[in-house]
Amino acid sequence: MKNVPFKGIIAYPITPFDQDEKVNIPLFKKLVERLVASGSHGIAPLGSTGVLPYLSDEEKEAITEATIQQVNKRIPTLVGVSNLTTEKTVYHAKFAENAGADAVMIIPMSYWKLTDDEIVTHYDTVASKISIPIMAYNNPATGGVDMSPTLLKRLLEIPNVTMIKESTGDVQRMHYLRKELGEDVAFYNGSNPLALAAFTAGAKGWCTAAPNLIPELNISLYKAIENNQLKEAQDIFYKQVELLKFIVAKGLPRTVKAGLNILGEDGGNLRSPLKPLQQCDIEELETIINHLKN
Amino acid sequence: MKNVPFKGIIAYPITPFDQDEKVNIPLFKKLVERLVASGSHGIAPLGSTGVLPYLSDEEKEAITEATIQQVNKRIPTLVGVSNLTTEKTVYHAKFAENAGADAVMIIPMSYWKLTDDEIVTHYDTVASKISIPIMAYNNPATGGVDMSPTLLKRLLEIPNVTMIKESTGDVQRMHYLRKELGEDVAFYNGSNPLALAAFTAGAKGWCTAAPNLIPELNISLYKAIENNQLKEAQDIFYKQVELLKFIVAKGLPRTVKAGLNILGEDGGNLRSPLKPLQQCDIEELETIINHLKN
Amino acid sequence: MKNVPFKGIIAYPITPFDQDEKVNIPLFKKLVERLVASGSHGIAPLGSTGVLPYLSDEEKEAITEATIQQVNKRIPTLVGVSNLTTEKTVYHAKFAENAGADAVMIIPMSYWKLTDDEIVTHYDTVASKISIPIMAYNNPATGGVDMSPTLLKRLLEIPNVTMIKESTGDVQRMHYLRKELGEDVAFYNGSNPLALAAFTAGAKGWCTAAPNLIPELNISLYKAIENNQLKEAQDIFYKQVELLKFIVAKGLPRTVKAGLNILGEDGGNLRSPLKPLQQCDIEELETIINHLKN
Amino acid sequence: MKNVPFKGIIAYPITPFDQDEKVNIPLFKKLVERLVASGSHGIAPLGSTGVLPYLSDEEKEAITEATIQQVNKRIPTLVGVSNLTTEKTVYHAKFAENAGADAVMIIPMSYWKLTDDEIVTHYDTVASKISIPIMAYNNPATGGVDMSPTLLKRLLEIPNVTMIKESTGDVQRMHYLRKELGEDVAFYNGSNPLALAAFTAGAKGWCTAAPNLIPELNISLYKAIENNQLKEAQDIFYKQVELLKFIVAKGLPRTVKAGLNILGEDGGNLRSPLKPLQQCDIEELETIINHLKN
Repeated sequence: MKNVPFKGIIAYPITPFDQDEKVNIPLFKKLVERLVASGSHGIAPLGSTGVLPYLSDEEKEAITEATIQQVNKRIPTLVGVSNLTTEKTVYHAKFAENAGADAVMIIPMSYWKLTDDEIVTHYDTVASKISIPIMAYNNPATGGVDMSPTLLKRLLEIPNVTMIKESTGDVQRMHYLRKELGEDVAFYNGSNPLALAAFTAGAKGWCTAAPNLIPELNISLYKAIENNQLKEAQDIFYKQVELLKFIVAKGLPRTVKAGLNILGEDGGNLRSPLKPLQQCDIEELETIINHLKN
Repeated sequence: MKNVPFKGIIAYPITPFDQDEKVNIPLFKKLVERLVASGSHGIAPLGSTGVLPYLSDEEKEAITEATIQQVNKRIPTLVGVSNLTTEKTVYHAKFAENAGADAVMIIPMSYWKLTDDEIVTHYDTVASKISIPIMAYNNPATGGVDMSPTLLKRLLEIPNVTMIKESTGDVQRMHYLRKELGEDVAFYNGSNPLALAAFTAGAKGWCTAAPNLIPELNISLYKAIENNQLKEAQDIFYKQVELLKFIVAKGLPRTVKAGLNILGEDGGNLRSPLKPLQQCDIEELETIINHLKN
Repeated sequence: MKNVPFKGIIAYPITPFDQDEKVNIPLFKKLVERLVASGSHGIAPLGSTGVLPYLSDEEKEAITEATIQQVNKRIPTLVGVSNLTTEKTVYHAKFAENAGADAVMIIPMSYWKLTDDEIVTHYDTVASKISIPIMAYNNPATGGVDMSPTLLKRLLEIPNVTMIKESTGDVQRMHYLRKELGEDVAFYNGSNPLALAAFTAGAKGWCTAAPNLIPELNISLYKAIENNQLKEAQDIFYKQVELLKFIVAKGLPRTVKAGLNILGEDGGNLRSPLKPLQQCDIEELETIINHLKN
Repeated sequence: MKNVPFKGIIAYPITPFDQDEKVNIPLFKKLVERLVASGSHGIAPLGSTGVLPYLSDEEKEAITEATIQQVNKRIPTLVGVSNLTTEKTVYHAKFAENAGADAVMIIPMSYWKLTDDEIVTHYDTVASKISIPIMAYNNPATGGVDMSPTLLKRLLEIPNVTMIKESTGDVQRMHYLRKELGEDVAFYNGSNPLALAAFTAGAKGWCTAAPNLIPELNISLYKAIENNQLKEAQDIFYKQVELLKFIVAKGLPRTVKAGLNILGEDGGNLRSPLKPLQQCDIEELETIINHLKN
């Protein structure tokens, strides 16, 4: 049987920096603790939210170890190890496994558009070097390549590629995955504004940075779906949809940091060229968050 | 209170032609009767499915009268009256009202891209000449113009524009409509593969040609949603999704005609340049339909 | 040898309306005369500029006859006869031939996306009913279908389809036409801002509404190219590019009418839902036109 | 006066790897020498062709030094120093300057979509740390961000940002640059199939990997333009357009390596996940190259 350690709300922490733009590990651990304490069902460091591509190898390793240490097996961990070259992806995947990660997430990062064969070989090479499961991640907007459903099907034939995360924002992709690959395939939604539609379509989980700001709403949406309460799920979704759209539109690292500040929490600094959210956007986010409290 | 005569499954009949490519009214009436008898909640002649733009004025009038006569008030009728010029749209809208239609559907057909002001004036002029309600229809793929949520909001300020049909295939548009315009706005889904996602998002009805072929599945999806049975709705949706995607991908008039033939019904001929579905596509449709019987 | 009656600047007149939105034939003739007198190499009524799809059959016939009468064989005429149905396209093509047109232009207007076979049969049917040459017109933005280079190649196998007008705005399409179809194929540019690039790529002519406003600049660009004067062509092109971009961006019927007014000419009225250019746009156009005089 | 060291054909070498996927510096130098010897007007290591993002810092430094040493001031060098973080971009820009580069090329690489302000600050920070000129490079397909003409205008206000390379494949962008920024702004074409259109529009140079395979054709196109020989330029362009389209469609590193092999030269290996061109594509390239010899 396939090894699928995740369901429900998989929370993505940001990577906070100090004033010199160095990674702030103590603050990172505090942010991870908040996510675990709030009831998230999984934790995923070194995703897009965690600005993976902006970090050095040493920083990635420190983040990986800090996460696993802080979570301490309370919930499963999913570590991002994507890299442009196959060699580096293998390196980070092995590091994550040795550090104790439950699974790794890999997006086929692409500068030169990869052929399907190149992508399959890339995953196959990494998969053969580790024994923990892999979540294959499709997000053309950040990764630069759009894996077709046919390609995803090929990837799932690799034994430890057991999960798919879809972030194209097209609910029909999920219909295809479910219809074509069968009910047993674990697919996850990575597009925040599609949270309701994706769960309705049968997504096993929701990969999201939103629990940094509104964990109760995220978790209660999942519970309403689990309890077959459609109208309730609809109400809970419409409460949070504005925030979900806002954080996606303005960029997750910037908006999560700003949102944490609004909630009275320290979100650290960003690394250049990323800059803090503009003042007018901060005010809009404040309005959205305050509106949720009522 | 707003006049909103439709909910549930609004069925779109095709317009059948005889061997000389003339409209076949007796066969059209028979096809309408099938839709009413199958339990559809509304009937909508002269839509895209009914090849509205390929018909002469006289043919449109004959179809309108035949529908209203055949339906005979058993369920409400929604008559398509879209035209490139405002003058002709007024003409057909008045004809439909006089013939006894419950509402008219208008898409802002566009050869020259219309400005928002031009679209508002177009609807306003038509609306001022009739007293039955109007469903404003957004479908950039066929109409050539994509009405923004902001524009749809302006249209809803016209008293008898009371309904919106969204066919962009983007479920987030429906989120916006619901969130921005309030729970009272009646929006309808016109994108077949989004049927489940749209109902989940709060759509009041589903405008579809599918009841020509699979009325029971369409209606039972709506009932499962009404009964708050999410898992059941999911199962019913996944049964029909392949057919829904097929008829959209290959063109509704061609596929409905071919599907009727497969079911042993007369679907008439098409009008040139439209040709029948190709043999390989007919075989694929046959497989999909046979698969549904089991 | 192929019958190719056009080269150089093929001018598109607008269709002016009176205050009751009826076609104003006397004014139309006057506008045609301006185009002939200014030195245009061909004249093309009932194009997009002439709002073909907004006209009744009788109006199209009146415009066709008025053009041929006014031009009186001084330059060749290219009459637009596109229609959604094949039957109507045949009807108007025969009318144009009988009225004395030198060629007809046909875009495969599409409500339901046509297959390649449907498009070929459409052209083939029309071509078999007339003996004057046909210009096949590709413009996905207004026609709704994008004919691939492969399809255009098939169309050119029909004996009297002798010319292609490309308006996708992608100069690489022209490279393909020239490279794949040989130097003998007559292709024409329908994208105003590409005028220089298209002539450089070997276009035989430029189909444009711009001669209604700046005939000298249009014609002198063509002459510079003919004389192998690249730097001069570049200078002449950069003089007019702003106007070319403006009239495309804001819509040809609206901007040509406004431009005629700025030049002190009567441009008539538009037919609803089309409205006159907004005041701020009129002012911008005035600035562009005045700038050209210096 | 602005410091603009480049015009004409700016050649991009590939970065060859050995059998262990290590950078092969001796072979790289040989490939650079070929480009210089063939008459290229400039040389640009560490571009997309040179798989910049797949290299470690040490490898980038070795390539930079090898280029400058091999070229030995015979023609100017343009070194790619783009990086996701500002800090790293500064680091590599300073290294290139110290090593003796004539200019650096910077594309605003983007994982998280950058705001205009973030991009300006990024360039400004780098520019303030070096004194050689910068070529700002716009290529949404590889960089992930599309810099608007307005943004490019802002970048040109930074004193040592003196050149723009446009690779959107839209010739209208070049019209805008020339029209809006004046004849003095040096813009370069980075889209191979647009070579003729771009020179016609006034591009000062052509940034291209094609001289690895067909230097004579690339250089003679530039000379024909310089000599105001439009028809000759057209002929020379049409000779090479098929190859230009092929190498872009199939990926520059793969196709240049394959083309070198076809020409009897050693092109080294690629770094995973990139794989050699597939056999059928190699055969197509062979046909294209052989066709050029006749």
